[in-house]
Formats: sequence, C-alpha cells, structure tokens
Amino acid sequence: MRDVSIIGIGQTKVGEHWHRSLRDLAVDAISAALKDAKVERVGALYVGNMLSGELTAQEHLGALLADWAGLGSIEAVKVEAACASGAAAVRLGYIGVASGIQDFVLVCGVEKMTDADAETTTAAWSAAVDADYEASHGPSFAAINALLMRRYMYEFGVQRQDFAPFAVNAHQNGVNNPCAMFRSPISAEAFEKARMIADPISLLDAAPICDGAAAVVLCPSDRAREFVGKPVRIRGSAMATDRLALHSRSDPLCLHAAHVSAQKAYQQAGVGPHDINALELHDAFTVMAALSLEACGFAERGKGVRLAQEGEITLQGRIPISTMGGLKARGHPVGATGVYQIVELVEQLRGEAGANQIDCRLGMAQSIGGSGATAITHILEAQEER
Amino acid sequence: MRDVSIIGIGQTKVGEHWHRSLRDLAVDAISAALKDAKVERVGALYVGNMLSGELTAQEHLGALLADWAGLGSIEAVKVEAACASGAAAVRLGYIGVASGIQDFVLVCGVEKMTDADAETTTAAWSAAVDADYEASHGPSFAAINALLMRRYMYEFGVQRQDFAPFAVNAHQNGVNNPCAMFRSPISAEAFEKARMIADPISLLDAAPICDGAAAVVLCPSDRAREFVGKPVRIRGSAMATDRLALHSRSDPLCLHAAHVSAQKAYQQAGVGPHDINALELHDAFTVMAALSLEACGFAERGKGVRLAQEGEITLQGRIPISTMGGLKARGHPVGATGVYQIVELVEQLRGEAGANQIDCRLGMAQSIGGSGATAITHILEAQEER
Repeated sequence: MRDVSIIGIGQTKVGEHWHRSLRDLAVDAISAALKDAKVERVGALYVGNMLSGELTAQEHLGALLADWAGLGSIEAVKVEAACASGAAAVRLGYIGVASGIQDFVLVCGVEKMTDADAETTTAAWSAAVDADYEASHGPSFAAINALLMRRYMYEFGVQRQDFAPFAVNAHQNGVNNPCAMFRSPISAEAFEKARMIADPISLLDAAPICDGAAAVVLCPSDRAREFVGKPVRIRGSAMATDRLALHSRSDPLCLHAAHVSAQKAYQQAGVGPHDINALELHDAFTVMAALSLEACGFAERGKGVRLAQEGEITLQGRIPISTMGGLKARGHPVGATGVYQIVELVEQLRGEAGANQIDCRLGMAQSIGGSGATAITHILEAQEER
Repeated sequence: MRDVSIIGIGQTKVGEHWHRSLRDLAVDAISAALKDAKVERVGALYVGNMLSGELTAQEHLGALLADWAGLGSIEAVKVEAACASGAAAVRLGYIGVASGIQDFVLVCGVEKMTDADAETTTAAWSAAVDADYEASHGPSFAAINALLMRRYMYEFGVQRQDFAPFAVNAHQNGVNNPCAMFRSPISAEAFEKARMIADPISLLDAAPICDGAAAVVLCPSDRAREFVGKPVRIRGSAMATDRLALHSRSDPLCLHAAHVSAQKAYQQAGVGPHDINALELHDAFTVMAALSLEACGFAERGKGVRLAQEGEITLQGRIPISTMGGLKARGHPVGATGVYQIVELVEQLRGEAGANQIDCRLGMAQSIGGSGATAITHILEAQEER
C-alpha cells in the first residue's frame, strides 16, 4: 500500500444555483481541481452524490461527468452513502491510489437540490434513514434528528439554547469563506428566536438545502511534489457503519460508527484527538456536532455542548470546528459535503484559509450519513519538506 | 497489489418478488454467499444498485444491508453505474482486497423493480441515459436502444429477425437455471411474432423488469484455499466509460467503453478473446449482445449477428454466451445483474453449472451501463491446485 496525497482542490460557491445544472457545477469543481493540481489526465473519477436520481432524474454520474469534464474513457463511478457520499468517494479514491491500481484520481462531490420543490426534496432526503421503519411513518430527516436532540437535552440536562454556540461559530466562520452560502454572522439571541422546523430543531440548528460541487485530485505521496509545492498527505482513512434506524441502536446518543471510524483513523495515523488542530465535523444539525465531538474523543459523553459553550470550538479554541462555516453556514449540498470538508482542511493545511487561518499541521474531517449509520473519517497532514 | 479470488457465491431466484423487500432479497444472497465461503466476518460490503432511491425511497443501502445482514459496524457503501452497478461493486471489492486494505469483502448487487407501477419504473430507468439531452425528449430506455438496433440493421444490412438467435439461446439456457426468471424455451417464430415495445425492439429482444439479488465473497488468492476447495481467481478487472449520450459518439455502433475495458482486462490477464471459454455479456437487448461481441473481439464489426446465426454463441459453440440465461432469460434486476454474471461464471468454473456445464477454464463477464457509456469487464479463472 502506498501513501496518498492531495495535490489539487476545487469548489463552487454553495448556494441556490437555479441557472446551473448538476453537470455544470461538477465540471466547474473538477476543472478547478485539475488546474490547481496542474494535472491534465487522471485514471479514475469517483463521484459522491446522493439525490441526483430523485431530484434530477439522472443517475450514471460517473460516465456523465467523465464525459462532460472531458476526462476521456476513464474509469468512473458514483458512490452513495447518504449525507456521507462525498467522503465515501474520497475514501474509494484513496483506496484506488493506495492500491497501486491508479496513479491519479479525481474525486468530485456534487448535489443539486434546489430545482425540485421543497416537499420533493424533503421527502427524498428521508431516503437516508430507514424507508420502511422510519420514513414511512412520516418524520422528515430533520424530525429524526430532532428525536436525537430531544433525547440529548433530556439525558444530559441541557436546554435548546445551549446549542447556540455551534450555529454562532459556524456562521462566524462562514463570513470569511467566499464559497459559503451564508456569510452573515448570527447572534445567540437570533438562535433563540429562530423559527422551529422540527421541535427542538430550529432553522438555525439545521444546514440549508442547497447546490454545490467540490473536487480533489489524489496521487501517490512520493510523486506529489512534482505537481504542487504544498501537498497534503492522507494520514488516516476509515469508514464504519451502525444500525440504520435510530430505534435499533442500544444507545442512540453514542454515534458508534463515528467512534469506530475515528479510532481506526487515529490508529492508522498514530495520533489521538489531542494531536488534531482542526476538525471539520458533520454539523448538519447542532446536535450532530455535539455528538460527533463526543464520539471522536474531543469531549466526554454529554459534554460536547459544554465544550462549545466554553468557546473551545472557535478558531481560537482548543479544537476549532467548521473552520470555513461547516454544514450550517458553508452549506450542505448533501453528496458534495464530504469533499468540501476535505477541500477546506487542505486550505487550512496549506495556509490558504485567509482570515480564518489557524495554526494547523494535522486536521481531521468526519462525514456522517443518515442519523449516524455511516461515518467516514480522514486525517490529513501537511506533507513535510523533503 | 495482491491477487484476488472469489470464495463464495449466493443468489436469489430472479422474478417478481411482490412479497419480499429489497433488504430481504439482499440478505438472502449475502447469507448464501457467506455460507458458501464458510466465512463469518468480512471487512467491507460494496452494494451495487441503481434504482432504490427512485423506486423504494431508500438510499444508504451500504449501512442498511450491513445492518440487516448482521455484518457489524463494517465499511459499507452503495455503488452506482446505471445497469453496470453490480459489476462496479465487484470492481471496487476487487480493488479493496488487491490493495491490502481489506482481507474479506462482500459484494452484493440488488434491485427491487416490481413494486412501483410500470410507468414509474420505465421513467426511472431512463436515468441511465442523459436526462437533459436524451430522456427529456421522451424516449424510454428501450427506445434509446432501439435507435442503436435500427442503425445496426441499416448499416450492416440485417433484419430484425436476424437477432432471434440471441433470444433463443438465452431462453434455452435459462431452462436449466433454477434462479432464472424465464425457464421456457422460445422459438425463432415466437421472436418474429413478439409484441413490439420500441420498434424494432420487441418483447423478446428485451430483458424483463424484475427483482433479484446476488452476492460474492472476495479474499486474497493465497488464502482462498483455507475456505473453499475450488476458488476462482480474478485474472482481469477493468472499467471504462464513453460519451453518455448516443448522439455524442462519433460511431454509436462501436461500444468504445466495452472495447477499452475488454482490452485492459485481456492485457492484465495476458490472454485474448480466443482464450475465453464462456462470456457473460450484457444482453439487455439483443443488439447489445451483438455489439458486445464485436467490441470484445469475438466478431468483426457488423458480424456479431452472424456469429449468433452460425450457432457459435450456444453452449456447444465457439464462444458460449449467457450460459445461464443471460439478462434476457435469467432476468435483469438492474443493479444486481453484474453480480449475477460473476456468480454464474463461478458456477461454470467450479463445474457446478448443472445441465448447462461447459468445459470452462477461463471466463469473461462484461456489464454495460446505459446505452454503452460504462463498461466493466472481469476475467475469471479456476484457481490451479497448489
């Protein structure tokens, strides 16, 4: 197995791109990543996407995007793992290069959600949970996560308002990210007054429905410096799953898949949570941010909210999270999100994060599918000078 | 990179399983494959599926099936490449084991198509072609393939009836396959009189809409004999793509992706078409069988139909195809088909193909997505005694 590095990144602005199609967004991100890597040809393309079939009547995105991006007759496939689809594509790209089968691999995450009406999109998103035993009873995806948040509040004695620091931090960090959907800060007061969408989840707990695409180029680490001055090495890559339905889990407040994938990634990298300088986590809902911090060992059980309240998740804190806005403010174009996280971590590790730059040598990205049934963790490191 | 072998196979009967859900079918196939391999635990599950989102409102099949098959918190992901989704999952499973990242991998292809009404299913299937530039104009997936068949007839001066041997052969081979959907032979006369569904494609040119699941277990070749007496080695594995829309291809009658993936697989295996004893090809429509034979070097351009007319595709011919019924008679549960092909080739290579057994040392399976935009080719060999 070979070490693998990231030598190119590309992303579109996240937002409501009513005048651009899924393929347009993806090709923009792919072109930007190839240009950034100074690579013209790749051997394979892995596309992370969840909802193209339901929302745009288009499957077969591997062939579609290889075609429209002018990549030639390369290997190309779509990968789906609900909201973690983009990270799953990164994981498969990593395996492709690590195996020696591919030298240069493109990974693109893309989602086009805003062309369908809200009801269709909301219903389609529920395909991330158990269709027969959860969604069929009527709860939206937000409502499933609301059950988690309500349980968290009950079990650990916290209030809805205690989750405000997650949203405030994400929006604050989104201000300086030109690709973020929301670039205005919010206050804890605004969080408190926000419109409820699935009690106790309000509009300011939840990531928006949006469009976007992000891409990265991978190659063997020992060749990375031929192409870029600041390659980023993938030190850890791991994926794990859990029972799909919330009601099947013995302890819904332990994100087992997140825990397992983080532990495996730590082990591969030979590091622990205290070595991580930045964490891009899956804050699709504020409660998921809290649970992720706990599952990955940054806070004890039930203490994730307190970590946020103590300011430790900000750019100046012990473990900065959502450094470019996270899912909440950068936006959550579902199948693209896992690739955006990697792109943003690479920006931090290269020192290209602008006003949000932190002192970052080792970063971690964790993407979660459904209400926690899939988790994919990557640990990235700025590649040492030779 | 390590050599990879298949040590377990499992399949459900293909048909209209109105009383069984997608997860039931998949778990049946997975359990059978694990039992066949005498393996209890695997490190990863790759699920090939195209239409679960559109037809059963369920995505996230990786986590769902890892959960319902009781596989623990393993890595699990869904892979989609239109009608070649199952083969794409096999390809990723192969890479996973070849890389050294996984020792034991399950690959499951599954599709549940018969619970939705025919109109919904037909519309969903069109997601395999270009949604914006082909499907949006109204043609069904069969109609897109009908354009290919019409062009083939025009360019090579053959008649509709000349395609009959493909359907007759497939149905004849399906008779002895207990898992085939159609187990009755058909005559060339029946083919001639068959009801038209998209002129010149009739009901007997086209694979049926159906349900089914198939699974295989992969492991490193040097460990295969610990588990089974007759492991089958993957000698070649390759994937390629082509322009997605028919109208974008300079020569629609050359299946470029099929050609490229076959050549790569031949090269990896160090063999050529004359070394292949059995070919499981993608006869979703008879014209695709002809084009595949030509793309893979078994017939010259425009001569695939003649090869069939000369009887060379039967079990007694030079290159037996669709030896257990093919897509036409075994059935084509879309995302499962590529795995069924592998399962059937393994049966031939193990000498377990019953009345349809041929003298088979080296077999090839080729799965095609859309109207030819994706092609995945695997070459399998009975593993030598040590």
